[in-house]
Amino acid sequence: MKIPGYEIDLEKAVKIIKNKKYERVLLQITEGLKIHISKFIEFLEEETSASVIISADQCFGACDVVSSELKDMKIDFVIQIGHTQLPNIEDYLIPTLFINAKSDIDISIVIKKAVHVIKGKKIGLITTSQHIDSLKHAIKILKDNNFEPIIGKSSSRVESDGQILGCDFSAARSISKQVDTFLYIGSGNFHPLGLALSTNNPVIVCDPYTNQVKVDELIDIKDMILRQRYGAIARSKDAKIFGILIGTKKGQQRIELALKIKDKLNSKKKKSILLIQNHFTASILESFRDIDCFVSTACPRIAIDDYMQYKVPIITPIELDILLGIKKWEDYQFDEILI
Amino acid sequence: MKIPGYEIDLEKAVKIIKNKKYERVLLQITEGLKIHISKFIEFLEEETSASVIISADQCFGACDVVSSELKDMKIDFVIQIGHTQLPNIEDYLIPTLFINAKSDIDISIVIKKAVHVIKGKKIGLITTSQHIDSLKHAIKILKDNNFEPIIGKSSSRVESDGQILGCDFSAARSISKQVDTFLYIGSGNFHPLGLALSTNNPVIVCDPYTNQVKVDELIDIKDMILRQRYGAIARSKDAKIFGILIGTKKGQQRIELALKIKDKLNSKKKKSILLIQNHFTASILESFRDIDCFVSTACPRIAIDDYMQYKVPIITPIELDILLGIKKWEDYQFDEILI
Repeated sequence: MKIPGYEIDLEKAVKIIKNKKYERVLLQITEGLKIHISKFIEFLEEETSASVIISADQCFGACDVVSSELKDMKIDFVIQIGHTQLPNIEDYLIPTLFINAKSDIDISIVIKKAVHVIKGKKIGLITTSQHIDSLKHAIKILKDNNFEPIIGKSSSRVESDGQILGCDFSAARSISKQVDTFLYIGSGNFHPLGLALSTNNPVIVCDPYTNQVKVDELIDIKDMILRQRYGAIARSKDAKIFGILIGTKKGQQRIELALKIKDKLNSKKKKSILLIQNHFTASILESFRDIDCFVSTACPRIAIDDYMQYKVPIITPIELDILLGIKKWEDYQFDEILI
Repeated sequence: MKIPGYEIDLEKAVKIIKNKKYERVLLQITEGLKIHISKFIEFLEEETSASVIISADQCFGACDVVSSELKDMKIDFVIQIGHTQLPNIEDYLIPTLFINAKSDIDISIVIKKAVHVIKGKKIGLITTSQHIDSLKHAIKILKDNNFEPIIGKSSSRVESDGQILGCDFSAARSISKQVDTFLYIGSGNFHPLGLALSTNNPVIVCDPYTNQVKVDELIDIKDMILRQRYGAIARSKDAKIFGILIGTKKGQQRIELALKIKDKLNSKKKKSILLIQNHFTASILESFRDIDCFVSTACPRIAIDDYMQYKVPIITPIELDILLGIKKWEDYQFDEILI
């Protein structure tokens, strides 16, 4: 079906529901598409006889997989709109279909604009799921202008090559030594910031919605974040009790890492408490008043993007290693969920 | 083990952990006891070799049962401190021990004070889990003063007779026709308010922490809440789209009721959307802007206790029946989770 700006293959879901005779269907919808909820429900209710139930939880990524309680309630099919599947997750408690929200925006205008400012020859092309089908247009334009576009191979956590997630920049890291610069196609700072932090290459941002080409803006944001990270580590030097966060979301269960961190802190005579939750927020964690520093093994973005909301510093596992003197600041790396 | 004000049989948990050789133990702790977290962890870490992990989620009741993700992470035992088990729930994904927090406060002072103001002869004695063992002292004092104390039978959702939960007042309802008045032992308004709303008998509150006997205070609060409920129904008369809330917590999964409500609204030509979540909050639900009224089949207390936080009215299933003209205001009943 078409919604303004996107093509969403809800028809595929309809076929499966009819074919499998599913009766209770759960819809998980990424935040940006929630304004279209009524259209999704209407479409499914008109085309099928299933009861359609909306997950009211915020759905930040394909790691947000539903849990056993929904099975208790006889929900027999889950549709997640706006994310591509994490291919390394195979065992879904309830059959789950991921439907990408494919943007119908024309990316050629902004790419044609970008060719005038790109320095270097080898260009790493990077984007997110909604523009993945448009990469071919970008490749053609770059080649026509004598650049050498390169698509990096993604890890097995990511559906397409050239695609990044907020917690997986393997498509960029795999080619960072070959390329002169990255060209990121998409809007917002969330993804390109991770891209800039996870490699040392320059990043040009091509926003097809505003047709803006941003060459330097990201450098300032990256610098600010790195200063913040340095500050977070410095502020935690004298921490007496650490809170180690473990996320329960299927794509981010790093309990083994968390247990190793506890052992590491023990060996340095530092106290720590293991905390588990599905969706961590600063306000929930405020009730643990004894804790001087949080180390997050949950979504890597919590420490970076929500930093200002926390009253005590929140750091990543790599940053803890720097704090403990196991790694040096010069070895700073952006935390990603690796498999 | 002893903590200030309470006796908590964590020794029982230690025995089970050693006996079953559990390695990863999750602690769920009721909000009021969270300040003692460090003591619980220290005790378990000293007495066993298990890794102790804290659930950072707020744990409001025994309905808050952990879900499958924790099993994925090889957590093999769950201890919930501060609630008694819901005996009707038997199938736990991970073996779960409920440890009551037994108050060590002496209730006799306030009961002796109360005997001077009680009107009537037959007294329904009601309390919550932490004072359940003290009921026997209250019985003796009342008998010594020529009253006839009666302990009401609880439903199969409640561990002890005479005990109420925020969503189950069967211990009171089962004897409401026999008794002249209820005598509630405990602090706060949460439980006695539900008690006052679920029966029509007078309720005397005996607070053993302040030794206050409250005879009339509850009448005012009950009146205020009933005025609020009447207002919520009136404000929803012209609602075009209803949001029907379904809770995923094991003890409050009323999806069948939710589906019936949707059919009922359909038959009255009213639109509705089914929304599912583990822990509903007003802020999360604000993103569903089309909805004019929420009907909660999740925890019955959300509509009553959190009412002021919601921008659109939130009502209970019984209140919806009144709104739709299926029931009359005179038939108003407090929503409880019945089995």
